[in-house]
Amino acid sequence: MARVLTPRAEDFPRWYQDLIAKAQLADNGPVRGTMVIRPYGYALWERIQAEMDARIKACGAQNAYFPLFIPESYLRREAEHVEGFSPELAVVTHAGGKQLDEPIIVRPTSETVIGEFMAKWVQSYRDLPLLLNQWANVVRWELRPRIFLRTSEFLWQEGHTAHATREDARQYAMRILHEAYEDLMVSVLAVPVLVGRKTKLERFAGAINTMTCEAMTRDGKALQMGTSHELGQNFAKAFEIEFTTADGGREYAWTTSWGSSTRMVGGLIMVHGDDDGLRVPPALAPTQVVVTAVKAEVVDAVHKIAADLQNAGVRVAVDDRADIPFGRRAVDWELKGIPLRVELGPRDLEANAATLAKRLSGGKVPVALGELSIEVPRLLAAEQQAMLDGARAERDARIADVSTVGEAAEAAADAWAKLPWDVLGDEGEATLAQSGVTVRCLQRPDGGVPDSDTEPGLIAYVGRSY
Amino acid sequence: MARVLTPRAEDFPRWYQDLIAKAQLADNGPVRGTMVIRPYGYALWERIQAEMDARIKACGAQNAYFPLFIPESYLRREAEHVEGFSPELAVVTHAGGKQLDEPIIVRPTSETVIGEFMAKWVQSYRDLPLLLNQWANVVRWELRPRIFLRTSEFLWQEGHTAHATREDARQYAMRILHEAYEDLMVSVLAVPVLVGRKTKLERFAGAINTMTCEAMTRDGKALQMGTSHELGQNFAKAFEIEFTTADGGREYAWTTSWGSSTRMVGGLIMVHGDDDGLRVPPALAPTQVVVTAVKAEVVDAVHKIAADLQNAGVRVAVDDRADIPFGRRAVDWELKGIPLRVELGPRDLEANAATLAKRLSGGKVPVALGELSIEVPRLLAAEQQAMLDGARAERDARIADVSTVGEAAEAAADAWAKLPWDVLGDEGEATLAQSGVTVRCLQRPDGGVPDSDTEPGLIAYVGRSY
Repeated sequence: MARVLTPRAEDFPRWYQDLIAKAQLADNGPVRGTMVIRPYGYALWERIQAEMDARIKACGAQNAYFPLFIPESYLRREAEHVEGFSPELAVVTHAGGKQLDEPIIVRPTSETVIGEFMAKWVQSYRDLPLLLNQWANVVRWELRPRIFLRTSEFLWQEGHTAHATREDARQYAMRILHEAYEDLMVSVLAVPVLVGRKTKLERFAGAINTMTCEAMTRDGKALQMGTSHELGQNFAKAFEIEFTTADGGREYAWTTSWGSSTRMVGGLIMVHGDDDGLRVPPALAPTQVVVTAVKAEVVDAVHKIAADLQNAGVRVAVDDRADIPFGRRAVDWELKGIPLRVELGPRDLEANAATLAKRLSGGKVPVALGELSIEVPRLLAAEQQAMLDGARAERDARIADVSTVGEAAEAAADAWAKLPWDVLGDEGEATLAQSGVTVRCLQRPDGGVPDSDTEPGLIAYVGRSY
Repeated sequence: MARVLTPRAEDFPRWYQDLIAKAQLADNGPVRGTMVIRPYGYALWERIQAEMDARIKACGAQNAYFPLFIPESYLRREAEHVEGFSPELAVVTHAGGKQLDEPIIVRPTSETVIGEFMAKWVQSYRDLPLLLNQWANVVRWELRPRIFLRTSEFLWQEGHTAHATREDARQYAMRILHEAYEDLMVSVLAVPVLVGRKTKLERFAGAINTMTCEAMTRDGKALQMGTSHELGQNFAKAFEIEFTTADGGREYAWTTSWGSSTRMVGGLIMVHGDDDGLRVPPALAPTQVVVTAVKAEVVDAVHKIAADLQNAGVRVAVDDRADIPFGRRAVDWELKGIPLRVELGPRDLEANAATLAKRLSGGKVPVALGELSIEVPRLLAAEQQAMLDGARAERDARIADVSTVGEAAEAAADAWAKLPWDVLGDEGEATLAQSGVTVRCLQRPDGGVPDSDTEPGLIAYVGRSY
């Protein structure tokens, strides 16, 4: 088969760009660092969004929408927050044909404006917890943009919640981390994320605790796929989110925030893609199966098969373009990473059979037409599990278990390393930073997320990140 | 009952603002003309969005996403287009800490950037039709903002399609008008929109035909709820959307665009609201039924009823806040316009019965607990139909059938008028414009949408608009 993409081993970043172009996922936008998400890329995002939205709602949060434009003064309220964002801001100075009195910021996050409104809406302990989520576009000017991973505009959800106690805030930030983010990434995206706590150095500006889901890309780097923050009372103090307690006192609320974005599409590509294109896990795939007519005379039969599969609950498409060479069509479906193809030719039809081509695990198997409605759903579930297992095995094989900072630096040239946080510490973290290696997260020995970075026996995972 | 809102008859605009605030639909944003859509208002929008998205997809269009930021030069390509928008633009002049070489426009629509990409994607007749839709925020600086109706930022869907022939484009613009817009507005929002063709004067800048869905608000004005445009080859020429025909020639594509926005939420309020608050049609309502515990001792029973209703396919919420006075809670549910309340007190429970309070048509009826799962869905369907019938009767009673321009001007002081387009004409239209009256649409005598404004026997509907 002719080479469709630059092989990963030759040039991973080039492979990534090739794949995005050839699978028609996205294009670069006309303004530097922006992107056009094409229908197939957007269909992936819509599926992620639907799955994430359902999980967020199951955690009790409600969607709302806050304005794109934020007065410049709002960002100055929380000193660490504005420092974290100011080099990335896009500023509107003219509108309605006039220069504005106060410049307007295009939101890099809605944190500040949501803080302002929470202060109005939260009066009493009865108003808490206040659990809000927003789906929106945000803008952070990127000097080194990379499509889906770091774009000047991206789509995301940002959750913002206010609680009566630190403990309640902590538990909610953790619940979103596990029940929304980790669950979606593992069970839908088949990405075996490491879930843990960020070090002080890697924390979100203004947070007292940042927790993260970290994926390993196929070039051995780390990709932060979603973060959940405890903001303590920092934001509540800056925005005066105060409430009357049950016994009549006044207290500042404890807030959290958490976000995940179109970056997940980039993660999907970088964790699962191969030299033939994208590989989409069945649980995510907008189209799980393409039923392909090899020749024109089987077009009716192919539509019948598709209808049966749809009735069996499968997301199915038909490829009846018999005038386009079969091989070319197969290459295109492989590029797009459709999990299964049912291929039907005239001889197959005579024999009452079809061929099942497995994009994810590879290979083709014959199947009787009468068994397709049983076999296809069974295979989709098996492939989903195999994909997760495969990605986990690949990742685990590339995590070096080391015991010194020097070994960690060396191992992290290729992939990740893990070592005791006691051994690494702030100083070791600073040393690694000189060679572009960061602590991706801290975990308890049992894989749990620590409550603080001073717990005994913590493990640090280190690597280079996107 | 204490007066909750300014009565409509006293001050309609004030009533509208009161309702939006008290029903917690939205707040004004910090930047002039922007809005914060609160969870209940957003839940209404999400339901509209889901219903619209399904209809648009059923018409064959695919969702995609184009950037927020547009180079200023793009807008100059189509002269009429830039003239239509330039006083409304918001301009980014600084980003990433520097002044930009070329100012960037915050999209007032994505028409131009989509045109640019269509030109890349459309090469051959095989690529047509190209049917795209986008859900996004857009910005048009408003001098006289009104929440949900005219805001500086609003949420909308914009469809953009390219076709091989004028006829195909015409049919698609019409299909969206009827199968997506009119169908959603009539069968979900219960808003009996008038569907027709705009006059030349009222057309979208650059269009050769604009078709519209017009609602009558309860103060007798007109509200444009959605428009569908044929753009002829104007945009294709400006953006060089050219294709190779089946016989090897080159031709410009025929394009359409169509949009509907958060303005529909404003329409819902203005068409259905009353002095007690919002009235939400059951087909739209995020919560169709609230099951209310009058006293604490029936809380378990209330949850049981809610579970049964949910199993019967009803969107249900529980109000078990027995510590808040029952009357206050009822006022709040009325404000929010929840179609039905099932009210259960201790005596009801003893008698194995509950009270059904009908927000939409008014009144209360007793019902046996065992019949709720049958009776509630039946009543929801009946109320939906009654709401549409009621709104249609109210509208029709306020359309004066007149025969001169003078009579039309007079009638339009209160509501709408209809008269033969032959009688009105361009000149009459100009005369009416002096008193703020516009032609809302032209219809055929049978209510159909005309193919041109020169067809014989057309009826012009005129009124004041929001």
